[in-house]
Amino acid sequence: MSTAVSPLAVPFPDMPPIAGVAFATAAAGIKYSDRRDVFLALFQPGTTVAGVFTRSKCPSAPVDWCRAALAGGSARALVVNSGNANAFTGRKGRATTEAQAALASAAAGCRPNEVFIASTGVIGEPLDPAKFAAVLPDAASRVAEGPWIDAARAIMTTDTFPKGATRTVTIGGVPVTINGIAKGAGMIAPDMATMLSFVATDAAIAAPALQALLSQGVQHSFNAVTVDSDTSTSDTLLLFATGRAAGAPAITDPTDPRLEAFRVALDEVLTDLAIQVARDGEGARKLLEVHVTGAASDESAKRVALSIANSPLVKTAAAGEDANWGRVVMAVGKAGEPADRDRLSIYFGDIRVAHEGERDPAYSEALASAYMKNDVIVIRADLALGNGKARVWTCDLTKEYVAINGDYRS
Amino acid sequence: MSTAVSPLAVPFPDMPPIAGVAFATAAAGIKYSDRRDVFLALFQPGTTVAGVFTRSKCPSAPVDWCRAALAGGSARALVVNSGNANAFTGRKGRATTEAQAALASAAAGCRPNEVFIASTGVIGEPLDPAKFAAVLPDAASRVAEGPWIDAARAIMTTDTFPKGATRTVTIGGVPVTINGIAKGAGMIAPDMATMLSFVATDAAIAAPALQALLSQGVQHSFNAVTVDSDTSTSDTLLLFATGRAAGAPAITDPTDPRLEAFRVALDEVLTDLAIQVARDGEGARKLLEVHVTGAASDESAKRVALSIANSPLVKTAAAGEDANWGRVVMAVGKAGEPADRDRLSIYFGDIRVAHEGERDPAYSEALASAYMKNDVIVIRADLALGNGKARVWTCDLTKEYVAINGDYRS
Repeated sequence: MSTAVSPLAVPFPDMPPIAGVAFATAAAGIKYSDRRDVFLALFQPGTTVAGVFTRSKCPSAPVDWCRAALAGGSARALVVNSGNANAFTGRKGRATTEAQAALASAAAGCRPNEVFIASTGVIGEPLDPAKFAAVLPDAASRVAEGPWIDAARAIMTTDTFPKGATRTVTIGGVPVTINGIAKGAGMIAPDMATMLSFVATDAAIAAPALQALLSQGVQHSFNAVTVDSDTSTSDTLLLFATGRAAGAPAITDPTDPRLEAFRVALDEVLTDLAIQVARDGEGARKLLEVHVTGAASDESAKRVALSIANSPLVKTAAAGEDANWGRVVMAVGKAGEPADRDRLSIYFGDIRVAHEGERDPAYSEALASAYMKNDVIVIRADLALGNGKARVWTCDLTKEYVAINGDYRS
Repeated sequence: MSTAVSPLAVPFPDMPPIAGVAFATAAAGIKYSDRRDVFLALFQPGTTVAGVFTRSKCPSAPVDWCRAALAGGSARALVVNSGNANAFTGRKGRATTEAQAALASAAAGCRPNEVFIASTGVIGEPLDPAKFAAVLPDAASRVAEGPWIDAARAIMTTDTFPKGATRTVTIGGVPVTINGIAKGAGMIAPDMATMLSFVATDAAIAAPALQALLSQGVQHSFNAVTVDSDTSTSDTLLLFATGRAAGAPAITDPTDPRLEAFRVALDEVLTDLAIQVARDGEGARKLLEVHVTGAASDESAKRVALSIANSPLVKTAAAGEDANWGRVVMAVGKAGEPADRDRLSIYFGDIRVAHEGERDPAYSEALASAYMKNDVIVIRADLALGNGKARVWTCDLTKEYVAINGDYRS
């Protein structure tokens, strides 16, 4: 496994405490030695929760657990581990989630269905609940309001840098903060992936409203990122609202106008984290931002954008710094969406390389090649059919991706 | 570009002449120097034709040409070139196909719509018709009944070995032969890819019946092969029937019982060629045969099989000789088809590694790892839900794939 940090890494931000959230990390020795691999967060009573999960038909045991627990709308504890996904582990897997919930509910003094669980790592290996029994009580005795970078590090698998984002805005004049962490970095595809992200705020928002905000926010952030088109069994995005910001108004309606800044900030946190996941795509050397404009609809634009972003030929061309727009045409064509070859234009950055069905007469190969040397490459396809548009992010496909995934288990 | 021959290459077969077919190859210098890059075939009057093409919404000019010409049902000439796909070339592209058809129809003494055209190679570069004017008249004067390997070589791009298949069977007691050639090797995905294949027989079969046979035969052959999920602008499979086998009965009904052996032989030729394309997948070191059984329907099984076969994580695991069945579970789950995690079994070859939702207790990692060292790996997923089944072929995903595609144009 590679140990070099992605050249696209961004610094971890300064993240302030969130009133009502305390956490600790621990080294349970689940797979990795010499590192902390468990993250335990405790939430004050009254914390609401929302979640979005993988669409896999073979979800992990923790995903099943969280989906069921979410119905209660209340959260008091979160237990996350890296190194083992507790997926495709049958009855043993369900027993492990029950044991994790029992341990955490004892520590937090809450009901088991107020405990949320996420696991990431190898699929199909039993996850021993004794590993949690050995560390959770002690971790619960050590919880503190920071540092968030420790939590971000504890949930990493093949990630090469910890991922965090934070925003502070006001709701009804009261400052509230949103902190989020995430891990990638392979098996990342729309509708989530082995992507775990945990976001907490001290705003006071009822669970149904929180869910509405999250479900909407995920569409243009985590659901617009793909690394390799593979969808994990374990994708989990949870949003916790403690309501502990002093004086924060209690919001129950997701369309409440007082939420305007909060909604924008939440979307920014989610998008920031999602792009960091693409920046840390396995083996990534370049971040690709794919814009599709002029599509028949926004939905059509997104399918075309994902077809481009998931194309191995587009991604390897980017790795080779090759302005191979013909492959972008191919990817537009294979999407199966309305497209007219003879109206299509393709841009790399501001350079229009193809226009109305053929190479742009003014196209400079030298300029386009120079552009491809950038770390961040914007590819735009304008279909010139309608007003639909979409933006998705991915990374290039390098030999390092193959190396990382060719010997992940060994 | 790699020049090493795929370790999965198979020998080119001895291919007998097809009565009514004569061909020649020529070096037109379209992209490659020092090799023949044009293939011209002439068919005797009365030759019928069937075709299947890419589903891309941005097809190449030759695909547009062939689709229109196919309506006539009659073929007298075929012009193929490698090195330039004449795709996304706008009005110039259409003009080039018209020029090619004029040259070939003059040589063959036929109507332009009896000429079929295919081009493979770089997208978006104008294809100069003068290249064909310079070689087609001479080629037409040199046509002969073989050797077929010359034709197979002339249509190669990143292929590392020429691909051919042949069968001889009887129709109504009369021996007839089917010869086919194909080229891959990247941008190969179901519903064809930059895959060109040309099949000829001396059987006498009316065009509509020929089309029915071809459309059916392609489902379990070329439409069951994927290299990288990318679909080309140029996929073309053409089947020509000269009717010149002495005494061959004229068949007009695709369900004619006299066609039984022919149908089987045609399917074998198509499947043989399709598997050769997977064997020559860019950078391939292993051939993967994916079987899905127990699915809700055959269609559902095929979607699950393609989800497995297109998964970069499954393909990189194969490259790493890693029996990572967890990724197969992931790929089953992401297909979106009916699947029950707790009934699923996964096999590598005859080794059952997972059963009823968890690792098979009898599973031997050592045996599975030894199996993964084979050149041909059979992955089976049994969903235990119904009787649907499907089989698809692909290859592993190696660093060489990235290298080949990272600097294809340069």
